[in-house]
Amino acid sequence: MNQNDAALSEIKWNQQGLVPAIAQDHATGEVLMLAWMNLEALRCSVTEGRAVYWSRSRNKLWRKGEESGNVQLLHEMRLDCDSDTLLLKVEQVGGIACHTGRKNCFYKHLENGSWNVTDEVLRDPADIYGDQQ
Amino acid sequence: MNQNDAALSEIKWNQQGLVPAIAQDHATGEVLMLAWMNLEALRCSVTEGRAVYWSRSRNKLWRKGEESGNVQLLHEMRLDCDSDTLLLKVEQVGGIACHTGRKNCFYKHLENGSWNVTDEVLRDPADIYGDQQ
Repeated sequence: MNQNDAALSEIKWNQQGLVPAIAQDHATGEVLMLAWMNLEALRCSVTEGRAVYWSRSRNKLWRKGEESGNVQLLHEMRLDCDSDTLLLKVEQVGGIACHTGRKNCFYKHLENGSWNVTDEVLRDPADIYGDQQ
Repeated sequence: MNQNDAALSEIKWNQQGLVPAIAQDHATGEVLMLAWMNLEALRCSVTEGRAVYWSRSRNKLWRKGEESGNVQLLHEMRLDCDSDTLLLKVEQVGGIACHTGRKNCFYKHLENGSWNVTDEVLRDPADIYGDQQ
């Protein structure tokens, strides 16, 4: 039994056995993305010291950065008052968290009744992912 | 039809008609909490300029701060790349976001296999909520 299992057993998973995990840049405080973890993903994150999520679309573990190299190194993990949301303080390798090639995923701002895209693409996804996209 | 309805219709709600909404202090970058919104809560948030969530436990609209006075004034609203998560930049009135009387809800830190509570209670919940708790 992993030494963290007692702590991880306190988490209140949803009906799909998942919890939302917010990734925040540990240095700047920028919110990078929200993804989901199951128990296995969380165990791997803690053991490996990097963000490992559960991909709901691909239905498998997703070691963030496994294709792009944009790994998230785990500096700190926090749990909220209701024990149903995680906050990860991470170091975003490569400075790109979003699959669109942007710094973070929250690049659509509500302004005057529409979502305006203001953040620039730092690297073309075709460069990041090659032919996989 | 509300002028924001076209924008709000782009949001990808989950099977319960909800999206997670991360509240972040607009000035300090501190992540305060995660709650959920349905379309009505989101419309109210935009119209009223304050965070209005959907309470899953009480099954009704939850105007954050309606009992405690700890309202979240909305400075900016962002949507992520997949259009299924919101990020709210807010001004936390009263400096307390958590119902436990703490600044934010993420006060349990994973350290050496257990969740250590490090953030202090700024105000006794009994003082905040009176006999309702």
